[in-house]
Amino acid sequence: MTGEFARAAIVSVGNELLFGETVNTNAAWLGRALAEKGIAVSCGYTVGDSRTSIQDAVWRATRSADLVLISGGLGPTEDDITRNAVADLFERPLQSNEKLLAKLRDRFHAHGYREFPETNLSQVEVPEGAIVLDNPNGTAPGLAFEEDSTLVVMLPGVPRELHGIFLGDLSALLEEWLGDRMAPVHHRMLHTTGVPESRLAELIEEAISSDSAFASVLSEVSLAYLPDLRGVDLRITSRSVSTEEAKASLDRAEEELDTQIARWRYHAISGDIVESVSDALKDLGLMLAVAESCTGGLVTKRLTDHPGASTSFVGGVIAYDDSVKVSALDVSQQDLSQFGAVSEVVAIQMALGASKRLGSDVGLAVTGVAGPGGGTKEKPVGRVWFAVVLNGEERTCSVDFLGDRDAVRERAAQAALAMLLRTL
Amino acid sequence: MTGEFARAAIVSVGNELLFGETVNTNAAWLGRALAEKGIAVSCGYTVGDSRTSIQDAVWRATRSADLVLISGGLGPTEDDITRNAVADLFERPLQSNEKLLAKLRDRFHAHGYREFPETNLSQVEVPEGAIVLDNPNGTAPGLAFEEDSTLVVMLPGVPRELHGIFLGDLSALLEEWLGDRMAPVHHRMLHTTGVPESRLAELIEEAISSDSAFASVLSEVSLAYLPDLRGVDLRITSRSVSTEEAKASLDRAEEELDTQIARWRYHAISGDIVESVSDALKDLGLMLAVAESCTGGLVTKRLTDHPGASTSFVGGVIAYDDSVKVSALDVSQQDLSQFGAVSEVVAIQMALGASKRLGSDVGLAVTGVAGPGGGTKEKPVGRVWFAVVLNGEERTCSVDFLGDRDAVRERAAQAALAMLLRTL
Repeated sequence: MTGEFARAAIVSVGNELLFGETVNTNAAWLGRALAEKGIAVSCGYTVGDSRTSIQDAVWRATRSADLVLISGGLGPTEDDITRNAVADLFERPLQSNEKLLAKLRDRFHAHGYREFPETNLSQVEVPEGAIVLDNPNGTAPGLAFEEDSTLVVMLPGVPRELHGIFLGDLSALLEEWLGDRMAPVHHRMLHTTGVPESRLAELIEEAISSDSAFASVLSEVSLAYLPDLRGVDLRITSRSVSTEEAKASLDRAEEELDTQIARWRYHAISGDIVESVSDALKDLGLMLAVAESCTGGLVTKRLTDHPGASTSFVGGVIAYDDSVKVSALDVSQQDLSQFGAVSEVVAIQMALGASKRLGSDVGLAVTGVAGPGGGTKEKPVGRVWFAVVLNGEERTCSVDFLGDRDAVRERAAQAALAMLLRTL
Repeated sequence: MTGEFARAAIVSVGNELLFGETVNTNAAWLGRALAEKGIAVSCGYTVGDSRTSIQDAVWRATRSADLVLISGGLGPTEDDITRNAVADLFERPLQSNEKLLAKLRDRFHAHGYREFPETNLSQVEVPEGAIVLDNPNGTAPGLAFEEDSTLVVMLPGVPRELHGIFLGDLSALLEEWLGDRMAPVHHRMLHTTGVPESRLAELIEEAISSDSAFASVLSEVSLAYLPDLRGVDLRITSRSVSTEEAKASLDRAEEELDTQIARWRYHAISGDIVESVSDALKDLGLMLAVAESCTGGLVTKRLTDHPGASTSFVGGVIAYDDSVKVSALDVSQQDLSQFGAVSEVVAIQMALGASKRLGSDVGLAVTGVAGPGGGTKEKPVGRVWFAVVLNGEERTCSVDFLGDRDAVRERAAQAALAMLLRTL
């Protein structure tokens, strides 16, 4: 199979995908990851844990694509038959790989197993002539071999294992194998939070129609709006073949867009506003303490998702029950009764309490009605109060969020971090 | 295509599915909806907005299935080419349908449109001999016709429109057309945590080979292992036509499997162990407080993911920095220095401190090394200590978890909840 640019086919294996018990997020993830590399997916197959179905789909895929990614069915159990089915299809006998065996033994011993589970032996078997792709997050490695000038790759179905292999060994292999046949695509992400997609689109379209310079710069790139519960990312894409040209047009586009979105924009390589918050705290040499009610630990969880958070985060108090707001955060029982837990007064006292009790420079507090129950006419579901205290200064704000419990909690945690970042 | 039971194939159309900009939830939804009717999906195809790709996939699907569901590409815009591609493939000329035209006109007038958008005219075109399936939620109807004793159905890709048509006209059509050939599928999920997939498989395979009663009961059903970071679900499936028989064989299989997995099993309709923990606390009338270090709020976050958690959860202290372990949880500074934060002594004091300070019956504590940094020879990355205190009784355990920071935290939070559940 040849052509100017490489084309890929994806074969997803698993009865749970056919029965719909699992949504096939792997295929979407691979589609995006390949598109970023400039490899287009031309078709996808979903098959059950059946030898003939797997072989039929893989055989068809290899005849129409330069790259075939097969995901799922590499686990240690009986219903994991992809390895054998594919090895037999291409008449590549399976051979036990000594390095893998040793690695797997170590892994299990590290895990405190005396004896090595027989069932895992299948995971060290490698089709003749196949390259082993390291799995940083599990026991089943990726396997790759060339067949009729098509690269055939087997990946485990567990998302984080599939991601780990793709971003590691497989990326390197694809560069080496298809490097000259990838249609270059250059992306840049601008992150915003606290503004709806429709409002952003409106502002940008107004600028395009009213400002010809803005319009011509934007015409060099394509713009995608990627909204989720935490905010809206703008993805600028240049398809210019020269990397320098691409960088130049992305720079120009970013500069123009910034005039419209600066208010809501934050800078984070990871895309996570926690990165910006953490950087700001470090730069200012400030320590943070958090008091959460409705978000129930989501803010502190996010703050500690990234290693090294400890350098600027001391800890938090999850004051889910009002009694804890009083006992652990010194919130006034009288104010609680008078103004209620979801109020500006209580938010401030929570932030002060966290900062004082845990010994930090900055205190951040979130208290609200996550729903589905607990809403009133005065305080509807989605109403959330935020407070930040820093050197005696107090900042507060309240937002009425839309959506179900998860959405309200996710949006509230993000808004709390955004408010903290702006205060800093 | 014939056979005892009807088999379906799904063809999903749309570039956005191949590029991964949209996750293919329609295929999963159709898979579940068909499984409930007793129609098994035997394979799925995903193709882009390309005439030849659509025709190729549909043609293959019709040769292997009794029912072919095609979703996407029925909209009014240029890239919606499914209707034409499929009509041409089976040489069924498109004819404008008067009823549909009238209905669409009314709809647009109802929406306040003076003139009727030309672009929508394609949506009233019906392949010769096709049945029109009413779309309660949009303008593009479903279309169905028989081809070589296979039922071919086209559905719009907008989820709520696809759902509406399936649950309405299409369900009726399927009953009528395949009623006698639907094989009901009965599933049951058994949830386990704290044991690797390979170990479960080993135990069950041993029981099968050593215990003929066990083996014969298991032979009536099929068994699938569904692992993730939180544990391994066992899915037992019976395809017996009689619901009573199916229930009986699922009961027998569950009973036998329970002899092997009881130690690690928990019961939760949602599949989330938090449900079991919450139920146990309510039954015992106990209130819980949590102290977290390495999990940084993940345990409390999970406890509050579900509404009504407040009835048995007072709150938590996220003692990320050691100073907070002392100031907010009364951990002894001397023990911290002597044994370190990741130790049995400190875990117990954290659990006691949370319970005392926040005023609860039960205290749960987690302290460990999430990594990537912070590991030592004595205390490697992944080492986590857990403690539960309840009426003066103390339970502790420590586990060395594998994986990256996210994995260690996710597994540690799950293990903490599992330990709490077992103590209760």
